[in-house]
Amino acid sequence: MSERAIGIFDSGIGGLTVCKAIHDLLPGENIIYFGDTARFPYGTRSKETIIRYSGEITGYLISRNVKMIVVACNTASAAALDFLRGEVNIPVVGVIEAGVRAACKRIKNRIIGVIGTRATINSLSYVKAIRQLDPEIKIFQQQATLFVPLIEEGIIDSEITRLTVKNYLQELYEQGVRTLILGCTHFPLLKKTINDIYSDLDLVDTGIEIAAEVEKILKEKNLAIKDDINNKGTIELYASDITETLERLKEMFFGHNDTSITKLVING
Amino acid sequence: MSERAIGIFDSGIGGLTVCKAIHDLLPGENIIYFGDTARFPYGTRSKETIIRYSGEITGYLISRNVKMIVVACNTASAAALDFLRGEVNIPVVGVIEAGVRAACKRIKNRIIGVIGTRATINSLSYVKAIRQLDPEIKIFQQQATLFVPLIEEGIIDSEITRLTVKNYLQELYEQGVRTLILGCTHFPLLKKTINDIYSDLDLVDTGIEIAAEVEKILKEKNLAIKDDINNKGTIELYASDITETLERLKEMFFGHNDTSITKLVING
Repeated sequence: MSERAIGIFDSGIGGLTVCKAIHDLLPGENIIYFGDTARFPYGTRSKETIIRYSGEITGYLISRNVKMIVVACNTASAAALDFLRGEVNIPVVGVIEAGVRAACKRIKNRIIGVIGTRATINSLSYVKAIRQLDPEIKIFQQQATLFVPLIEEGIIDSEITRLTVKNYLQELYEQGVRTLILGCTHFPLLKKTINDIYSDLDLVDTGIEIAAEVEKILKEKNLAIKDDINNKGTIELYASDITETLERLKEMFFGHNDTSITKLVING
Repeated sequence: MSERAIGIFDSGIGGLTVCKAIHDLLPGENIIYFGDTARFPYGTRSKETIIRYSGEITGYLISRNVKMIVVACNTASAAALDFLRGEVNIPVVGVIEAGVRAACKRIKNRIIGVIGTRATINSLSYVKAIRQLDPEIKIFQQQATLFVPLIEEGIIDSEITRLTVKNYLQELYEQGVRTLILGCTHFPLLKKTINDIYSDLDLVDTGIEIAAEVEKILKEKNLAIKDDINNKGTIELYASDITETLERLKEMFFGHNDTSITKLVING
């Protein structure tokens, strides 16, 4: 039993969907979130740089005495997870592993689809993670870069977005994909739009899956907060740069609430 | 008459459309282009920072003995043009002035429309520049942020893009706008798509307008290169960070040619 917070970080603001999923499942837990918006995006940076940035943020979270670290960023999960696990003696979990484990359990036809930004798809991180669990599963990938600005512009329930969904997903669907990993933390905001078109497509929301893993690990390690229905966890949100867009997206990704974002610059 | 190059800079790669327009009009001129891709985008940065970055790049271009500087970036044109003019003794021209002067000449109904990224629209730079020339002109602005990723993804001749064009422009058109300034260096790539829908909309391509200004200034100041049909100018392209996306966009914005981009980091 521990009142220590769960530390979550992302290269930007997308990880707030992960933060929300964890808060929804475990409302009593205290959370510290850091979005490295000033150095966003990580997708185009070298592995060495991503490890350095992730290490700096982890150092800050450790200084805040967190009991667990959630890497809510696809790029940092792929590049820095092993490194971070070697550096700290608390559990470290990443979005890719959680998503892949859930997808492998849920598939019915031995085919998994993955969508993400161009950087994530080109990195083959999901392909490698699936192969490690089951080398026999057929994998179809598709970059869906345009989903990010559509979501950020709030163009979600729109014919433009429905056409874009078909544009990216029709081929995967025809190839037999019925289990699709949403390999970008923005994409959960499109779940309804996608399922309105492809109703039998099982969408793997990595935020929800990682929340379930966090719950399991906290219980196993006896680190969960005291389960009390009246106990409402505190949430601290930090970002290395605060812009108007960030404030707008915070509301969209995290919902209307009183939690404000504070600027925090972490130096190596 | 001068063989010295024309220096062009942008916060990123969009300014290549300006570079292309200048090269198309003045094929004999030598050009040095710098895109500050490592520090892109400028739109979210403070005026002070934009002035510093622009000053650093201008310093480099001066060290290359350019005869003229073209600020092919909306944000830098708005924030740093006056500063740069005070610093150097060669002509400095910016995309905003060129676009506004052309639009004011071409309007028939005393109404000008402006589209750009959210940062450009919120800055009111075009509104202020138009008001300076003619305080009586009616101005309608519209952010068209999604055009940038659509263009960068090459989704141009597509129903998705046509719907997005209508989404952003229909209201401006109904308000009487028939002269529309493309206030983002990416947007010239959508001219055909826009005019296919709104055939009587006069699109002001700031790249073409600035090319005309460059020609005029070079003639006035006797700085043009010797006019010889066999004389083909050299083009040097530099960027502070080179990515796969950059290479793809270079081809899209600048056309298929042999000019490669070289990485160049400018320190203040």
